[in-house]
Amino acid sequence: MLKRKSRWLLSAVIALFTLVLFSQACFAQDTMTGSILDVQKYERAIEIMAMLLVGFGFLMVFLRRYGRSALTATFLLVAAAIPFFMLLDSLGLFGGPTKVEIDQLILAEFGAASLLICAGACLGRLKMYQYLVLAVLFIPFYMLNVWLVLGNGFGILPAGGVVDTGGSIVIHAFGALFGAGVVMAITNKKESAIPIESDYTSDKFSMLGSMVLWVFWPSFCAALVSPEKVPFTAINVIIALCGSTLATYLTTVGLRRKISISDIANASLAGGVAIGATCASANHPTAFLIGILAGVLSTFGFALIQPRIEKVFRMIDTCGVTNLHGWPGLLGGLAAIFVIQGLNVGAQLAGIGITILLALIPGYLVGLVLLALGKVKNHYEDSEEIIDVNQG
Amino acid sequence: MLKRKSRWLLSAVIALFTLVLFSQACFAQDTMTGSILDVQKYERAIEIMAMLLVGFGFLMVFLRRYGRSALTATFLLVAAAIPFFMLLDSLGLFGGPTKVEIDQLILAEFGAASLLICAGACLGRLKMYQYLVLAVLFIPFYMLNVWLVLGNGFGILPAGGVVDTGGSIVIHAFGALFGAGVVMAITNKKESAIPIESDYTSDKFSMLGSMVLWVFWPSFCAALVSPEKVPFTAINVIIALCGSTLATYLTTVGLRRKISISDIANASLAGGVAIGATCASANHPTAFLIGILAGVLSTFGFALIQPRIEKVFRMIDTCGVTNLHGWPGLLGGLAAIFVIQGLNVGAQLAGIGITILLALIPGYLVGLVLLALGKVKNHYEDSEEIIDVNQG
Amino acid sequence: MLKRKSRWLLSAVIALFTLVLFSQACFAQDTMTGSILDVQKYERAIEIMAMLLVGFGFLMVFLRRYGRSALTATFLLVAAAIPFFMLLDSLGLFGGPTKVEIDQLILAEFGAASLLICAGACLGRLKMYQYLVLAVLFIPFYMLNVWLVLGNGFGILPAGGVVDTGGSIVIHAFGALFGAGVVMAITNKKESAIPIESDYTSDKFSMLGSMVLWVFWPSFCAALVSPEKVPFTAINVIIALCGSTLATYLTTVGLRRKISISDIANASLAGGVAIGATCASANHPTAFLIGILAGVLSTFGFALIQPRIEKVFRMIDTCGVTNLHGWPGLLGGLAAIFVIQGLNVGAQLAGIGITILLALIPGYLVGLVLLALGKVKNHYEDSEEIIDVNQG
Repeated sequence: MLKRKSRWLLSAVIALFTLVLFSQACFAQDTMTGSILDVQKYERAIEIMAMLLVGFGFLMVFLRRYGRSALTATFLLVAAAIPFFMLLDSLGLFGGPTKVEIDQLILAEFGAASLLICAGACLGRLKMYQYLVLAVLFIPFYMLNVWLVLGNGFGILPAGGVVDTGGSIVIHAFGALFGAGVVMAITNKKESAIPIESDYTSDKFSMLGSMVLWVFWPSFCAALVSPEKVPFTAINVIIALCGSTLATYLTTVGLRRKISISDIANASLAGGVAIGATCASANHPTAFLIGILAGVLSTFGFALIQPRIEKVFRMIDTCGVTNLHGWPGLLGGLAAIFVIQGLNVGAQLAGIGITILLALIPGYLVGLVLLALGKVKNHYEDSEEIIDVNQG
Repeated sequence: MLKRKSRWLLSAVIALFTLVLFSQACFAQDTMTGSILDVQKYERAIEIMAMLLVGFGFLMVFLRRYGRSALTATFLLVAAAIPFFMLLDSLGLFGGPTKVEIDQLILAEFGAASLLICAGACLGRLKMYQYLVLAVLFIPFYMLNVWLVLGNGFGILPAGGVVDTGGSIVIHAFGALFGAGVVMAITNKKESAIPIESDYTSDKFSMLGSMVLWVFWPSFCAALVSPEKVPFTAINVIIALCGSTLATYLTTVGLRRKISISDIANASLAGGVAIGATCASANHPTAFLIGILAGVLSTFGFALIQPRIEKVFRMIDTCGVTNLHGWPGLLGGLAAIFVIQGLNVGAQLAGIGITILLALIPGYLVGLVLLALGKVKNHYEDSEEIIDVNQG
Repeated sequence: MLKRKSRWLLSAVIALFTLVLFSQACFAQDTMTGSILDVQKYERAIEIMAMLLVGFGFLMVFLRRYGRSALTATFLLVAAAIPFFMLLDSLGLFGGPTKVEIDQLILAEFGAASLLICAGACLGRLKMYQYLVLAVLFIPFYMLNVWLVLGNGFGILPAGGVVDTGGSIVIHAFGALFGAGVVMAITNKKESAIPIESDYTSDKFSMLGSMVLWVFWPSFCAALVSPEKVPFTAINVIIALCGSTLATYLTTVGLRRKISISDIANASLAGGVAIGATCASANHPTAFLIGILAGVLSTFGFALIQPRIEKVFRMIDTCGVTNLHGWPGLLGGLAAIFVIQGLNVGAQLAGIGITILLALIPGYLVGLVLLALGKVKNHYEDSEEIIDVNQG
């Protein structure tokens, strides 16, 4: 038998030993769980990268004689935007630095996505180096807007006041409206007469880009969502995309009698744009409805709204980004008011308003800068800057 | 020194405190692990989505003048099938509702895959809206068959009696045979004379689709497998695909003297089809063997079996899905009998038999419905429903 | 009240019970964490597979009349290399067997990548079955070199002495130099006169391959890195790729006045090649610098070095793999000397030296074997072995 003193000491030692082991194991486990979650975010980051290069890049290959330039421009815009964003954020500008490294990468990719949207508006009319100028001028305004709208920048809007999980407002609408601003400045009279042509092969490449965007869109919207909400959010995005894809087909046939591949390739994605704001909070039927509305709106944009806007504002939007990212983005931002109970409506509207102003005005000014740097001689032509056919 | 009473109380309190902390931590950890595993399933779900749109979509672009229609049809079939499946399952039909949301999405994707296989048989001969009709009619029969064969529906077959982890039987063979049923109903005499043409560019797009399917096939088969079995299952699938790819090359050259790109793009995937049933249970050499047999069988199908079947049954299978998904799917289902010790052979054979009947007969009836709705005027022609070239 | 004896027994029992529960939970948790980490590696393995088939495959489609052959060859090379590597490793050759199954798959994919690089040098000049011969002859030398340089094979170099996390030396430089050896043996005088042509569509397919490689390159380099280092490593790779992409644009315009799409599609990836050795250890600015240097070096390679080497050594490197994988790979291996403090410089240099010898000499010998087996009649022509157009 144990001595009396030893008895309670023994059990106390076992208990303490277990407690110490347990807390160590907990700490190790938390660290490991943190690493695992970061690697899961990394997977989504890589899928977003596929959207940026293969998705946006090939969607813009619909221009039959500017495809190789569009792909080169995509490469350059991404390669400039991502390190530049990370540099500015690391310097502590616009609310930075972001503490978790993989989050910083994802935020930089969001910025690159918005930039690619903007560039889509002026595609085929900038010299190659001007895309780099655009990247350098765009990114700070983009970061400023995100900081003001979502990051409590200057204390204007309350933190968490504006709901925009997947970037309907600050990524899509901002990029499209910034691009609208740019093309309002750079479009000249003659350009309306220059055809924007696709062909059978360029249409298929465009559909490839569209499908890559469609497939990985859930990872875009759920990139920074907490792990337990990822499946729900992703399914909402998929359902919204299904809605817009079906609605686009019905609307394009309804408006044009036959199917426009450009409508299918673009407006099918409008559900992803519009569900962005509420992707983590809407229920599935609402997500489907938002998708349908976005698909209809976007197809109307391509078929009816764009021709009128181009005349009124004398602006040519090469890829029709206002139709795909502009109106559906604003729709998504406004939808949050109806979808999310207890939403700070004033903040949401103010966030949308700030985004519109901070996109259009600096966009127009950046357009003037680009115009001052000159324009291409031959519109939508690879031969402007690319060696004709590289025979050995 | 502590008082005597306090001594044992102290150690008891430490021990209890540790126990409470520990159980809380365990609970939190289990919840977190559940979320992490669901996000891992989500990744595989996204990869399957890439197979559905980019994979199946572009594989069907081999039709040189129907590529844009094939891509549009793919978009519509997926966009209709996934929410429709989720709706029916959520309503509790066919053994639903599935409890875990991400599992429901993956099951819906499986249904969409089977539907795309079926649609491949009649590609180029349906009007665009008819693909939507096909989706709506196909999905309930698909769900019924899965429920009967794998889900103990009506108690006909014992739960777990049929082994079909990756869907050789209920996804691939079902879809292909349903499609065979449809085309038996809709093929008319004249159609044998209409050429099904590819060209150099459409062949490359087809190879793109094929490669995307090849790459993500392991995620398809391992989508719902328990985490510790994912690597083993995935490697089995990869080995089977390597086997069928090598066998296809040798067989296509052996049978045709030169390489048929259509054989390479399709039959290379037959290993993935056939390993489905036993992907989690076969050993690696067996997986390689199954892949080789499937590749040989599928290439023979394209080169020799299909022309005879088309004559005998007066059916034209546009994409040759019977060769890629039909015979190799049945081969995979039957292979389980030799591979898995202690398999309920009766149940496995009954499951295959039910699948064949539930595919062919409703497929034929659905074909009659589609036929009653009319057919395209120009076969395999984008111009039937797509605006010719969308010049600005 | 409890009896005295019971008092301490109670607390001892609680403590022991907690300890047992805890250790069981820890064990279960560790097993589960192991599975989760293996599934995360699996995701990277799948992304590498996308690089092998879609990435390398389509990058080589730049050959306008050899695209379908290039894709078929890619299929065959991968389908042969992966099971063959796994077989040799499982037999215990070259330091095997690898214990963790998913690690073995990833190592096999690395071997397939190196093989594809090698095959790029002789593309368009081998008969289809000769690619299979190349695969069988290449893989053992590749495995031998990896074992000698990184695996303490024969005890020549200390384990961990050579730093090459992402394979700058043993994958990229080895594959390129082996390919250089092969083409030194097989190139004949007439071949210099045969043009290596691309066209607009083949250029776009090539850019697709390039972008797929770019996007998934971080998963290649971080495939076997410990989870907590994955994000840092991946970001280094992305930054290096951004650097090489920007540098390639500036260098191609600087050297050629206009953009060469071949430069953009290839040299943009040189940052990924060169950062391989130090991807887990360099800081981000250094990664950017390495990327820039690699992009400049690679573009110089395509524009200026290759034409001279082809004359001096009478070797035609079809895809220019020496420029993309050769020089940048060696650059990356040497960069480690400047980047990593306390590096065993002697071992690093010896590892590079061994790699050069074990690539060039066996490469040349393998080239002689291939030459003895005969060569194609029509260079860079699909019609050599592929059925012209598979009309129904």
